[in-house]
Amino acid sequence: GGGWAAQPPSLAATDLFWQSMQGEARAAAAKEPLLASFLFNSVLNHRTLASALAFHLANKLASAAMPATLLVEVCREALAGGAAAASGHPALGWATALGADPGAAAAAAAAAAAAAAMDRTLRLDLLAVMERDPACTQLIDALLYFKGFHALQAHRVAHALWTTDRRPLAYFLQSQVSKRLQVDVHPAAVVGAGAFWDHATGLVIGETAVLGNNVSLLHSVTLGGSGKKHGVRHPRLGDGVLVGAGATLLGPVTVGAGAQVGACSLVLEDVAPQVTVVGVPAKVVGVPGVAVPALHM
Amino acid sequence: GGGWAAQPPSLAATDLFWQSMQGEARAAAAKEPLLASFLFNSVLNHRTLASALAFHLANKLASAAMPATLLVEVCREALAGGAAAASGHPALGWATALGADPGAAAAAAAAAAAAAAMDRTLRLDLLAVMERDPACTQLIDALLYFKGFHALQAHRVAHALWTTDRRPLAYFLQSQVSKRLQVDVHPAAVVGAGAFWDHATGLVIGETAVLGNNVSLLHSVTLGGSGKKHGVRHPRLGDGVLVGAGATLLGPVTVGAGAQVGACSLVLEDVAPQVTVVGVPAKVVGVPGVAVPALHM
Amino acid sequence: GGGWAAQPPSLAATDLFWQSMQGEARAAAAKEPLLASFLFNSVLNHRTLASALAFHLANKLASAAMPATLLVEVCREALAGGAAAASGHPALGWATALGADPGAAAAAAAAAAAAAAMDRTLRLDLLAVMERDPACTQLIDALLYFKGFHALQAHRVAHALWTTDRRPLAYFLQSQVSKRLQVDVHPAAVVGAGAFWDHATGLVIGETAVLGNNVSLLHSVTLGGSGKKHGVRHPRLGDGVLVGAGATLLGPVTVGAGAQVGACSLVLEDVAPQVTVVGVPAKVVGVPGVAVPALHM
Repeated sequence: GGGWAAQPPSLAATDLFWQSMQGEARAAAAKEPLLASFLFNSVLNHRTLASALAFHLANKLASAAMPATLLVEVCREALAGGAAAASGHPALGWATALGADPGAAAAAAAAAAAAAAMDRTLRLDLLAVMERDPACTQLIDALLYFKGFHALQAHRVAHALWTTDRRPLAYFLQSQVSKRLQVDVHPAAVVGAGAFWDHATGLVIGETAVLGNNVSLLHSVTLGGSGKKHGVRHPRLGDGVLVGAGATLLGPVTVGAGAQVGACSLVLEDVAPQVTVVGVPAKVVGVPGVAVPALHM
Repeated sequence: GGGWAAQPPSLAATDLFWQSMQGEARAAAAKEPLLASFLFNSVLNHRTLASALAFHLANKLASAAMPATLLVEVCREALAGGAAAASGHPALGWATALGADPGAAAAAAAAAAAAAAMDRTLRLDLLAVMERDPACTQLIDALLYFKGFHALQAHRVAHALWTTDRRPLAYFLQSQVSKRLQVDVHPAAVVGAGAFWDHATGLVIGETAVLGNNVSLLHSVTLGGSGKKHGVRHPRLGDGVLVGAGATLLGPVTVGAGAQVGACSLVLEDVAPQVTVVGVPAKVVGVPGVAVPALHM
Repeated sequence: GGGWAAQPPSLAATDLFWQSMQGEARAAAAKEPLLASFLFNSVLNHRTLASALAFHLANKLASAAMPATLLVEVCREALAGGAAAASGHPALGWATALGADPGAAAAAAAAAAAAAAMDRTLRLDLLAVMERDPACTQLIDALLYFKGFHALQAHRVAHALWTTDRRPLAYFLQSQVSKRLQVDVHPAAVVGAGAFWDHATGLVIGETAVLGNNVSLLHSVTLGGSGKKHGVRHPRLGDGVLVGAGATLLGPVTVGAGAQVGACSLVLEDVAPQVTVVGVPAKVVGVPGVAVPALHM
């Protein structure tokens, strides 16, 4: 886990985290001239991490129907917590935990706190890639090249739109992410901070799913629905859960914190905290042996 | 199942189904100005549903090699049954069932009947999404945003091209759908009406597969080949079959009408009608408990 | 397996293999005028197979960040063995086997030998599609339409970049292939000649994986990592191995030459040569019954 204090945008000039990423980009540009223009436009030209991410997402997800110039504003506003500040978005929970008091604060202060919370989540997500993927050795690699990270951040934008009642736009974004990044997450799904979606192709997460903090999901994982038409019909995963490649969890099952679901498993019943389940259907076969399986992939 | 009478294009002005979808689009455009231009171009600007779909598919599947301006004509012609009318396409079976007599009718009448049949199938496919996906609450959402619906309709176009001996173009379309929509269906595969391909990423259907009406397939389903090089080498699915996420069916097996194949199952042998099979390899574990499992997801 | 002698580029004028593919393209263009321009640009306008492939890959993988005009040069140079010749790339092993002596030869001769080796591998890969996929009846279909073939060749380019220390560009290419072709192969992975990646959606191959010659992989196969952070942590597959759809192999396991892994299997332990394993977890259930399972799909 990280220890980054949330930083309001005004502190960006002294944002060592972002400065360090820009240093990585400068080194990569010097090493590979063919990427210099891309690295300048995507990283070096941005004052903040959130701005760079919005630019990158917009380019990945734009289409004839929604040009990058419009989409970048949508992403920028969502990542700046604008939507959240206007609506009691859950990110305000973070803001409160960080010392803000939305009840008393002016709208501007609430917006700044929401932006700080969104930014903190973004950094925890970036660090999750770096810490858990042995093949990732630089933060800019996660930012620029990891499909699962892009899909996750696009979901955070779509979720912010969803919770501020901009549902058509949220659906539009979900649809683009499904086609361009092969990750189909309903905008209503709740995903905690420090999420890591490795490889990500084929990942499906349904409307009423709820994921805790520091959850790691491999590719082709399904958190799918039961036959019910209404109410909670998708899985709930506790903090630190690890779900292996191709595992399928169906219905309103609960997977306890620190549990591990093996690759190719089919989970149709609740899983206790801190156990390992495997098989079709999944059975308990042991314990993960570590406190947070999601961190040990 | 629906009860829509097939409507020749000349009746489009009184097409209440399409008018209702246009009403949904107007409401969405009023609610989300950023999508207004997209909704106008994709829905409101079209006199018929088939025209809107052809426009939308062409934009999704165009490339430098095949601009949308050409592709829209290919889709339009196929969806208008032109190819079918000229070639004894199976859609004429529908036309016959609807009262047309291709043997006696003039070519124009046959074309109109084929167009009506294609249009009826399209509407049944749209309604399948709406009826079976709890997360889909509007018909335009299915039309505009559901990858599986787009892949299905693109397959209907590719299949029409295949059956009229335009195989290179059919292969081109299959290839684009595989890349853009992550659904790889051989153009020769036969797919009944009222099909629903949910999420759809990773779906693979081989050359000699035959699917009945009202079949529902989840994502990552494989209807794959056996080791044979010739003849029928892929599965045949009866009406109303439901295949769960990640299930793999290999070889010329038959799955009876109303059967249900559980998620993550491996099917290498025939499945009787109205049973539920699960596991690797799949075994009978019960009965679906409903007449048409595909309708109860 | 094929018996094509490696041909230096200077012999392209008498390259019967490529001439035959151009003949296929001419026939297809005559049959389908809508594809004529595409076929001219992609096939007929190129003096060599490698040039056509570079053009095609660049168009598939270009983006705003990396225009096709730049990418085509990257692909062309890699496929021409330029990178390899400059760096002791494994392709020189081929060159040596073909009679070249890199130690003594001038740089120009080494480059020609490396180009010939790359070209030979490319042809073996093309023939693998043609020979093993009953639905593929022309070499240009494999070249133009098969996603798995495109992903494989893009990996060969990325691997050449990786081995010549152009890692940022290799990562960029991996990322584009993961998004556009839904195949996520680490650039460091070693893949032998005559590889066939069928359908390919969802295929994942990790950093330290090593695949022999004539290996066939179906879609949704994972050659994934164990929990280790360092050293060899991915599978090693011998010559002629066949891995079925959705199979997941995790950790530094060895699969012996001529073994067959059934669809949907989970492999966590070594597999002996010439056996068939199936299940979750996979158990030996028999022998393939053929010398090279990969050739009998």
